[in-house]
Amino acid sequence: MTITEKRHQDPERAAGRRRQVLDAAAACFGRSGFHGASMAEISKAAGMSAGHIYNYFDGKDAIIAAFVEQNVERVSALLRDLETRGDPLQALLDDVPKSVREHIDRETWKLPLEITAEASRNPTIAAVVHDADRRTRAQFRPILKAGRELHGLPVDDATLEGRLDAIISVFQGLPVRAQHNPDLDSEALVAACTVAMKALLFT
Amino acid sequence: MTITEKRHQDPERAAGRRRQVLDAAAACFGRSGFHGASMAEISKAAGMSAGHIYNYFDGKDAIIAAFVEQNVERVSALLRDLETRGDPLQALLDDVPKSVREHIDRETWKLPLEITAEASRNPTIAAVVHDADRRTRAQFRPILKAGRELHGLPVDDATLEGRLDAIISVFQGLPVRAQHNPDLDSEALVAACTVAMKALLFT
Repeated sequence: MTITEKRHQDPERAAGRRRQVLDAAAACFGRSGFHGASMAEISKAAGMSAGHIYNYFDGKDAIIAAFVEQNVERVSALLRDLETRGDPLQALLDDVPKSVREHIDRETWKLPLEITAEASRNPTIAAVVHDADRRTRAQFRPILKAGRELHGLPVDDATLEGRLDAIISVFQGLPVRAQHNPDLDSEALVAACTVAMKALLFT
Repeated sequence: MTITEKRHQDPERAAGRRRQVLDAAAACFGRSGFHGASMAEISKAAGMSAGHIYNYFDGKDAIIAAFVEQNVERVSALLRDLETRGDPLQALLDDVPKSVREHIDRETWKLPLEITAEASRNPTIAAVVHDADRRTRAQFRPILKAGRELHGLPVDDATLEGRLDAIISVFQGLPVRAQHNPDLDSEALVAACTVAMKALLFT
C-alpha cells in the first residue's frame, strides 16, 4: 500500500505549501517523536491551520510517506550518478569517505531513525517503507550486477541479494552507531568501512 | 549521567517487581512508542498502581535505562565467552550466522530501535546510551586487540577504534535493514556479512 499525494489546481503553490508542512513536521517529530507530535503542534509550527494542512496531507502517516519518498529520490539520484561513472563498484568505493561522514551526522538521521522505529509498530508506515526499499533495491541491483560482471565476479541471485542488503545495512548502521557513540573517530571509521565495502564489492 | 536503581529491603522481591514492570513497559513501548506509552498504560499492563511502579522506577527514562543495562549485560556475557575460546577473532567469525539471524528478528529489536530514536532527542536517554556504549567498547577493545596480536595484525589506536565501531555498526544496521526489507534472504545475508566481518577482523 502506498499513500498517494493529493491533487491540486496550482501544483507549484501546492508544492510550496507541502514543503512548509514537511519542514514544520520534521522539526516537531525531531523534538517530540512521531507519537508525541500532534497535528495541532505541526500546524502551529507551519503557521497554517490544521484544516489547511489536511488539504495537502491526510495526517501524520501521509507526512511520513512524503519524507520516505524524498529519501528514495535522494538515493535514486546517487544511483543514477554511479551509472555514469564507468566502473560503478569503484565509484561506490571512492564515495565511501563522503557517504560515511554523511551517515554519522546525527541531526540528519533523527527523522529516518524515528521512521524506522515507527515502521516496526505501524503497518501503514511499514508498507510505505517496504515499498520504498523494494524500489531502491530494484534500481541498485542491475548497477551492482553490471559492476560485478565488469570485474568477472559472481552475479548469481544469492550473491547479489546478500551483497545488496549487506551494503545497504552498513550505511543503515552508521546513524545508529553515531547516536550510541558520540565520540566516533570519523577518519578511523572511514578506513574500516572502506575495508568492509571493498570486500563486499570486489570479492 | 546514569540513572541508578532504587534500593529495596527485599532485593529478590524487588527484582521480580522490576521484571514485571519491564515486561509491561516493553509491550507498551512496542505498541505505542516511548512517547505514546504513558505511565498509566504501563501500570495497567503491569497490574500495579502507578504509585507502586514509582517505588521501582522514577519514570519512563529510568525504565529505558534498565532496558539498556540488560542489553549491556547480554553483550558483556557474549564478549566474556569470546575470551574463553582461544582465538577470539575466529570465534567472532564463527558466530556470524547465529548473530546475523538474531539481529534480523524484527520483534526482538523493536525496543532497541525505539531507544535509539529516543536517544536522538532526549539528553537523559542519550547519556544512558553513551555510557553503555562506552562500557561495551572498553570490554571489547582488549579482546579485539589480543585477537589481532595473535594474528600479527596492526593494533594501533586508529585501526582498533575504526574496526570496533565498524563491527558494532554492521550488527546495529541489521535490525534497521530487517524493518525496511521484510523479505531478507537470511542465508545470502549471512554469506555477505561473513565476507565483511572477515575483512574487518583479519586484515
